[in-house]
Amino acid sequence: MIITSEQVLSALKNVEDPDLKKDLVTLNMIKDLKIEGKNIKFTLELTTPACPLKDMLKNACLNAVKHFVAADAEVEIQITSKVTKPADGGQMKGIRNIILVSSGKGGVGKSTVASNLAVSLAANGAKTGLIDADIYGPSVPTMFDLVGAKPSARETEEGKTLILPIEKYGIKLLSLGFFADPDQPVPWRGPMASNAVKQLFNDADWGELDYLIVDLPPGTGDIHITITQSFPIAGAVIVTTPQQVALADTRKGLAMFRMAGINIPVLGVVENMAYFTPAELPENKYYIFGKDGGKALAASFEVPFLGEIPIVQSITEGGDQGSPVALDKNNPLSDVFWDLAGKVAQQIAINNAEAVNC
Amino acid sequence: MIITSEQVLSALKNVEDPDLKKDLVTLNMIKDLKIEGKNIKFTLELTTPACPLKDMLKNACLNAVKHFVAADAEVEIQITSKVTKPADGGQMKGIRNIILVSSGKGGVGKSTVASNLAVSLAANGAKTGLIDADIYGPSVPTMFDLVGAKPSARETEEGKTLILPIEKYGIKLLSLGFFADPDQPVPWRGPMASNAVKQLFNDADWGELDYLIVDLPPGTGDIHITITQSFPIAGAVIVTTPQQVALADTRKGLAMFRMAGINIPVLGVVENMAYFTPAELPENKYYIFGKDGGKALAASFEVPFLGEIPIVQSITEGGDQGSPVALDKNNPLSDVFWDLAGKVAQQIAINNAEAVNC
Repeated sequence: MIITSEQVLSALKNVEDPDLKKDLVTLNMIKDLKIEGKNIKFTLELTTPACPLKDMLKNACLNAVKHFVAADAEVEIQITSKVTKPADGGQMKGIRNIILVSSGKGGVGKSTVASNLAVSLAANGAKTGLIDADIYGPSVPTMFDLVGAKPSARETEEGKTLILPIEKYGIKLLSLGFFADPDQPVPWRGPMASNAVKQLFNDADWGELDYLIVDLPPGTGDIHITITQSFPIAGAVIVTTPQQVALADTRKGLAMFRMAGINIPVLGVVENMAYFTPAELPENKYYIFGKDGGKALAASFEVPFLGEIPIVQSITEGGDQGSPVALDKNNPLSDVFWDLAGKVAQQIAINNAEAVNC
Repeated sequence: MIITSEQVLSALKNVEDPDLKKDLVTLNMIKDLKIEGKNIKFTLELTTPACPLKDMLKNACLNAVKHFVAADAEVEIQITSKVTKPADGGQMKGIRNIILVSSGKGGVGKSTVASNLAVSLAANGAKTGLIDADIYGPSVPTMFDLVGAKPSARETEEGKTLILPIEKYGIKLLSLGFFADPDQPVPWRGPMASNAVKQLFNDADWGELDYLIVDLPPGTGDIHITITQSFPIAGAVIVTTPQQVALADTRKGLAMFRMAGINIPVLGVVENMAYFTPAELPENKYYIFGKDGGKALAASFEVPFLGEIPIVQSITEGGDQGSPVALDKNNPLSDVFWDLAGKVAQQIAINNAEAVNC
């Protein structure tokens, strides 16, 4: 019996991407199919390298071929990815998806989430950038051990000067903190702050990026208005703690993205500082700031709940010591952030696919 | 032997106020002296009802009279107070001392400190007001169980409309949150936000206040610039957590008050979320966010360290349930905030006295 391409593709038509609700052949995700006798080789091209369904889809392909084509086939599946972009995402040359990390209230761990999200996406193989747009409290220099670092610049052929983002842990980074003395306050009124942030987007040499993460300042002020009006945004990740006073602000921060004239997809809610577990009492979870507040918020706005992050000293220390905890695969917490990155990337792939198909 | 006023005052000249570095008679703190035989009655007029030296000064007066005048005298000392104001504090009619509660970073517990400080000062007998100027995340409505409350207004004889602050727990309160739907975001650019805050100062019927506490938004933006330039400020209380990323922002927030053109006395640094103690392990202190960061910061700027506040569920719950923990004298934490209030009031009294004497 000779195995044909038609047989293999017909078998793979039985495998559906549960997020995109279509089969892999229709989605054009099967590439480079090669058959030599009983050896079948092809590439599965996912919509994001951080896809949490990677292994599941690979297994489903394997089973489909064995079941519908030949039980004794030798199947070799390569996995690659081509990150999709929003339908209206053509404005920022080279940058596929801009992801805002936002919170109504400050101090809920927005920078921790943004940094670890960026690190996790990059570690999965995505080309990732990070803009720290928190003008009055930029945390990225501390979190990436780059206090005092100064980006250099290059001149384009047209004579325009472009800032070169600093590369660390596989990420391209720019922070407003790189342009100010770390001990000097920045008492800027709104328009000045907004212009500074716009420069980080427009006047920097970002190259090609799958994801550009933006760590926003808390609240719903000048910088939010400017960014959401000036750039095409793939979606926003909302960070909160379980406290009522934080949730009250988070509700407003979330509602802002849904206002007419802003209208940015909310990718989901992350609950930070969910509970504390002392090393001496590993079974005890202390819900210091209340319980399940983020989950309830996500439910009430009908947006995905992306997960809860416990209070663990190594997260704080990782940030303070300039090495986000997601980098350390020996630390069980890094899984929490990798999982979060997968869910965010997945949500974006779904939104992008829906936008294309609508 | 007949006891004379001169003898008693001469004896009390030996008692020095350790903060103001002068004796009580020179400071004009002895009032209504009455002598009948061996019965000596007078009033000790302190510079703040929250004076932490209250008992110490009373005892010193008693001992001085017994030692220098008559060992068998019957001495009765009333304690009262007349809160002083800064030398240049005449601009805001009726308001003696405006105290800013500030932090570089959000979410460090600024509103918790501001609310409990206000409650503690009022409970000590001071006429106290609280302005919640955190436009993008006003917490006072939640913390005082006033979500959805709407202040009324009255018209003055000159036809000006004045907002009437809401009274709760003995404090007069106004929050930007009273004027917005709690679920609606306030996507205002800086100038609009600044004008709204100015109205809370200028267009409200505050009456006579010893202390007006202002809960500022995080950072060093429009509202900070507006408030520090528009009103006479007695001093600023800086709130931080022990994390490096918080301290970096706090340094900037603190430095702002020292900039030429702003120049506001820093009353001291409060370290919040200093440590967590589980009920099951009462001896253990978990320094979740690092140790002594606030203390070191206060030392490096040579400002008073006003104390550390542990992470305790009842503080969070008190805030979430609309009843600041300082109100509950059965809770040992209320002492932490009363102590803080005493130190803040003391620092202001010292600054005011120095300003008068310079």
